[in-house]
Amino acid sequence: MIVTGSERRISELCSSWRKEGLTVGLVPTMGALHEGHLSLVEIAAASSDRVVVSIFINPTQFGPGEDLEMYPRSIDDDCRAVEALGAFAVFTPDVNTVYPDDFSTEVHVAGVSQGLCGTARPGHFDGVATICTILFGIVKPDLAVFGMKDAQQLAVIRRMVTDLRLEIEIVAAPIVREPDGLAMSSRNKYLSAELREEASLIHGGLFAARQLALTGEKDCSLLRKAFIDHLRKAHMLSVQYAETVDPYTMLKIDKIENRVLLAVAVFAGTTRLIDNILIEPEV
Amino acid sequence: MIVTGSERRISELCSSWRKEGLTVGLVPTMGALHEGHLSLVEIAAASSDRVVVSIFINPTQFGPGEDLEMYPRSIDDDCRAVEALGAFAVFTPDVNTVYPDDFSTEVHVAGVSQGLCGTARPGHFDGVATICTILFGIVKPDLAVFGMKDAQQLAVIRRMVTDLRLEIEIVAAPIVREPDGLAMSSRNKYLSAELREEASLIHGGLFAARQLALTGEKDCSLLRKAFIDHLRKAHMLSVQYAETVDPYTMLKIDKIENRVLLAVAVFAGTTRLIDNILIEPEV
Repeated sequence: MIVTGSERRISELCSSWRKEGLTVGLVPTMGALHEGHLSLVEIAAASSDRVVVSIFINPTQFGPGEDLEMYPRSIDDDCRAVEALGAFAVFTPDVNTVYPDDFSTEVHVAGVSQGLCGTARPGHFDGVATICTILFGIVKPDLAVFGMKDAQQLAVIRRMVTDLRLEIEIVAAPIVREPDGLAMSSRNKYLSAELREEASLIHGGLFAARQLALTGEKDCSLLRKAFIDHLRKAHMLSVQYAETVDPYTMLKIDKIENRVLLAVAVFAGTTRLIDNILIEPEV
Repeated sequence: MIVTGSERRISELCSSWRKEGLTVGLVPTMGALHEGHLSLVEIAAASSDRVVVSIFINPTQFGPGEDLEMYPRSIDDDCRAVEALGAFAVFTPDVNTVYPDDFSTEVHVAGVSQGLCGTARPGHFDGVATICTILFGIVKPDLAVFGMKDAQQLAVIRRMVTDLRLEIEIVAAPIVREPDGLAMSSRNKYLSAELREEASLIHGGLFAARQLALTGEKDCSLLRKAFIDHLRKAHMLSVQYAETVDPYTMLKIDKIENRVLLAVAVFAGTTRLIDNILIEPEV
């Protein structure tokens, strides 16, 4: 497996694969890989001939006061793990490679980037859309895999790829959870034992809301309430948002008629965790 | 020559050419083609195997109160002219094809898009950068040709292509002028006979400024003054801006040390005309 920070190297490598008629799958990450990420690599490996994993802690998607500086790093472990899954290359550019001094371009996706994390983290999705466009430009993948935990990110990328005619298949990978239900996240490392225990209530709340929907409840405000009520058992969790939205447009939905995404952001102490669950209408 | 408004058709056509190992050159236009545009087609034909000309009056690069509605159209003549020069396809999408209802993405290039036309036409270069990214996505050209008359547009596109790693060679085509020196422009059609006559002073002013530089003058404020003074002969021209800038960054330059672009925008009655000239330092 090739590990390189050189944009030219990775670009030439992918170009040579394409010339051989091989398809390229990209898994963009910020490193600190957990089983959630690894499932993305497995999906990419199953659907393409050559998997490239990018590891780049993208500063432009962090807001002021967010955890850019302390974001966990484990590059050697990350490389070993993705190599074991059959990745052919890991692209680890540094910040000055990606954003040289005279870099000036931003990709902004309106609509779908608003509300939810878009409200909580202003500028975040501009950073995400821009870095993904850059990575797509360098790697020119046939497909790219994104996790459904970051549901709004997935929706933003899908919208952008459609709008800019990037001709990249965006594959959505299911959320991978810890045995107690907590969605895998690099930020789970920030949690103390107590917070870690309470954090499993997030998943419990999502499933409680879905359970309510399965009994026939159509009123989304009651589903959101079920989630929030479930979290009242916690002492150190505070809900930043709990919204029922269309999973493609992120527009708010009040009544279950088609599939609805219940998307939440919860502070566990100072650590912000997101999670979501798809709720299908009863048929 | 194929003329189509179908995005799918043009995309498949270009894709089939690429698979045959043929290079594709794109000339993006808004139609109403004049000899300036045709020179871009000639350059594209000389540098690539298959030339695609796009004709699309892009609404997002027009501001409120600008001439979107009255912008000249001559699609049949345009097609005949580019076919005669060896173009293989003309892409004529309609607005709803390019921008479906849920379209949400904007490409913004900071820095180089500021000042000059960026100040005079807020949002213009966002519209230009976005439509070019879309056309590049559909056609996936090896090269694209832009005229140097739109010097800031050229600089914005170059910056964007570099930043987003689009791997498209951007070719700059020299300004084509009428016999009396007026830069070719689709908007010249708006000019009355009187305005048309006065408009040639723009070119005269640019050359007067360059002449001054050739005598050894290094002070850009005096070059700008030479241009403005030259236009005092006119009764119906008013200078919107006359700036000396770096041709790549569009940053203002006060003293000639390297090459400087004298870029101007002039109202001839209500018609806004732009022009520019490169001034090389004396060696």
